[in-house]
Amino acid sequence: MTQMEQAGRGRITEEMKYVAAVEGVDPEELRRRIAAGHAIIPRNIRHHFNPIGVGRGLSTKVNANIGTSGHHQQLHDEVEKLRVAVDSGAEMIMDLSTGDELDLVRREILRRCPVILGTVPIYQAVADRGSVYDMTADDLFGVIEKHARDGVDFVTVHCGVTREAVRRLDSDGRIAGIVSRGGSMLASWMARSGEENPLFTQYDRLLDIAREYDMTLSLGDGIRPGATGDATDAAQIQELLTLGELTGRARARSVQVMIEGPGHVPIHQIEANVQIEKRVCGGAPFYVLVPLTSDIGAGYDHITGAIGGAVAAAAGADVLCYLTPAEHLRLPTITDVRDGVIATKIAAHSGDLAKGVWGAKERDDQMSLYRKRLDWEGQYRLALDPEKAREIRRMSEDYDKAICTMCGTLCSMALENTRSRLGELLTAPEEEATHRHVRVGSAAYRRTGNA
Amino acid sequence: MTQMEQAGRGRITEEMKYVAAVEGVDPEELRRRIAAGHAIIPRNIRHHFNPIGVGRGLSTKVNANIGTSGHHQQLHDEVEKLRVAVDSGAEMIMDLSTGDELDLVRREILRRCPVILGTVPIYQAVADRGSVYDMTADDLFGVIEKHARDGVDFVTVHCGVTREAVRRLDSDGRIAGIVSRGGSMLASWMARSGEENPLFTQYDRLLDIAREYDMTLSLGDGIRPGATGDATDAAQIQELLTLGELTGRARARSVQVMIEGPGHVPIHQIEANVQIEKRVCGGAPFYVLVPLTSDIGAGYDHITGAIGGAVAAAAGADVLCYLTPAEHLRLPTITDVRDGVIATKIAAHSGDLAKGVWGAKERDDQMSLYRKRLDWEGQYRLALDPEKAREIRRMSEDYDKAICTMCGTLCSMALENTRSRLGELLTAPEEEATHRHVRVGSAAYRRTGNA
Repeated sequence: MTQMEQAGRGRITEEMKYVAAVEGVDPEELRRRIAAGHAIIPRNIRHHFNPIGVGRGLSTKVNANIGTSGHHQQLHDEVEKLRVAVDSGAEMIMDLSTGDELDLVRREILRRCPVILGTVPIYQAVADRGSVYDMTADDLFGVIEKHARDGVDFVTVHCGVTREAVRRLDSDGRIAGIVSRGGSMLASWMARSGEENPLFTQYDRLLDIAREYDMTLSLGDGIRPGATGDATDAAQIQELLTLGELTGRARARSVQVMIEGPGHVPIHQIEANVQIEKRVCGGAPFYVLVPLTSDIGAGYDHITGAIGGAVAAAAGADVLCYLTPAEHLRLPTITDVRDGVIATKIAAHSGDLAKGVWGAKERDDQMSLYRKRLDWEGQYRLALDPEKAREIRRMSEDYDKAICTMCGTLCSMALENTRSRLGELLTAPEEEATHRHVRVGSAAYRRTGNA
Repeated sequence: MTQMEQAGRGRITEEMKYVAAVEGVDPEELRRRIAAGHAIIPRNIRHHFNPIGVGRGLSTKVNANIGTSGHHQQLHDEVEKLRVAVDSGAEMIMDLSTGDELDLVRREILRRCPVILGTVPIYQAVADRGSVYDMTADDLFGVIEKHARDGVDFVTVHCGVTREAVRRLDSDGRIAGIVSRGGSMLASWMARSGEENPLFTQYDRLLDIAREYDMTLSLGDGIRPGATGDATDAAQIQELLTLGELTGRARARSVQVMIEGPGHVPIHQIEANVQIEKRVCGGAPFYVLVPLTSDIGAGYDHITGAIGGAVAAAAGADVLCYLTPAEHLRLPTITDVRDGVIATKIAAHSGDLAKGVWGAKERDDQMSLYRKRLDWEGQYRLALDPEKAREIRRMSEDYDKAICTMCGTLCSMALENTRSRLGELLTAPEEEATHRHVRVGSAAYRRTGNA
């Protein structure tokens, strides 16, 4: 039975108890959300790791994409990227490999992956045949089933790339057309074959596989905008409407579902994108491919993505897919992966502060107290990347002093602490905040590190 | 006569014409905005450079702080930071030096500065005496007058740090107290002397100096929150109310004014902060010290700040003060300055897309077209940091090929272009976007580089 089915029968599973404890939420409340499809626990019955929850009332999660390409394939690089991504706080990994020996790569990554692992099966279906045009529907479902058997926790399936959506896209006159690899493969296949998308026409076949392994379906947005000028157009919304319908059909079979979202979206349209997904897909978890709020940040897209990701998370998005500085330019290096995860963790945490997620405010308040007290070790401990913070400060001339080179003796914290000793400042609030922190305990911090 | 006074008399100055041309706005509309105090042209009559406008209807500007500290003082480092900041696109520089020979440092920077230059005179007033407690009101006004005579374009004056605001702050029970250096100096001075803030009590003296040199007053937020947990509290708003009043008094004398804003603010409170500033200060330009949307990003505060800055700009903020990766840890290096400016330019541009600023969307759309056409040179040209984008791609195995290592032959752009040749995709929209771009011309791009 899937987590959703058990939740629907009123059963609070061990997985739900664990997630509830880590997230600081009520287990019964979590069960209700899972039963309703507003929260999910994406974990294949064949993949063993501490369960991680995604969705309403839970902290915002970060996904890191790794994987070989035909132009760069070194398994050990990808394994190292996995390690770095998880160490930096990613709760979800996607193996997007498109090089050779895909089964081997996936199984090696899966074996070492202590967090949620996702794939995009169509890449392998196309790679196996050597050309998208030679792929058959059976090829595609065969690969999906293989991934499910291997223990993949979720698969991205672009079920909403229908002939109608592609027709609308072409008549919309987009700038960048389709930028999703899976989406463009399906659109090309459909254009050549004249047939409808098999992931749409044979959706029940997909549900059968997913149900058997409690593999979550990540309904992909193959028609997502790949340019801010294309955001929120009719084709994108058309696809979303289809995904909303398919969400309902998955729920009827107790298959866990999340919805993938854009892409490139200017700031003022992000909240609307989240609202419409939540409405049309009945509150299903929203996994955004961190909306880039501009197209001209090449070389810094982890930053442009962090802007959009934070705004999306604050508006209710549940998972942010990271971007690295290499996005749009080349496959990321190991350093890029680290930079991408940390930038996206900042976005997710900024969203959590706005959402009022349990433990988020307490951590920030405690950090601010350490800052006021010029307690550098305390600050490093609570920073998202302790080593980096320490390394930067270590470069300064007064590393061993309480103050820093930025203000030297004109430190506002030092001045304020002196003024406070003049008897004008109350100390009670500090004590109170510290107390709150202690009560919250370490679980809130654990979440942000290794799963 | 100040720009504001001339605008009030119906005169469109050469400065206004220049700014209107660069920004793509109507000169008469700009004149009206300057007369109303909704836009400003901060330029001391003694500082010669191509004028830059700030405020309603104009693109969002980026400020970079440079300057020595008592713990690190190498003039050539600061001069190099100036060069790098301006090259990276900063339209405003603040010399926040607190080391030795402040007159020399300021004059050297001013002499080389081709953009708006600002200072915080209280730093020098305190440095000259060696202690904040020994500073007199005359010391402070003396330094302000010296900076004005030297040609400084704007000074930060913390006129709103009144006894009432500090009393409210202390009774609020803040986590981090006052984090503004100038603000904490004044609060300490007031606590010891028992007197009111001279910048508040002798505000007319300040207006006299500013008016003579058309030096803009940047009404500082000495009581800004320095922790997300302190954001939007009564003390902060109390200070803002005072600044609103002082804005009115400055306008009555035709002195140009902008208002400084927070600080550390969680995402969901940023828009409210912009709205209240615009309302209480009668639409005066808002210069935010890019709100950090979380406190735990130490080592990456240029990213956390880019998130808050973009949201603030989209909501109507007019200038974003950059943060560098070194913020809260040490004085920034030259590399930090570059990283900080670019991150903040991304935020400003993301805000401009949301604001609908002239030329912003055209640049993004053209970039997306180049991306679709796999035109790498075109992409580098429109990227905010062309060298960085080129450098990242140069590291990949297929630098000389059209496609990139990310997707290899499975490039969605390549697939889409093939599908398009199958005759299904209209090419008209591309032509149209190109045409728009050509019509807009190069001015839109010039703005983002050197002034």
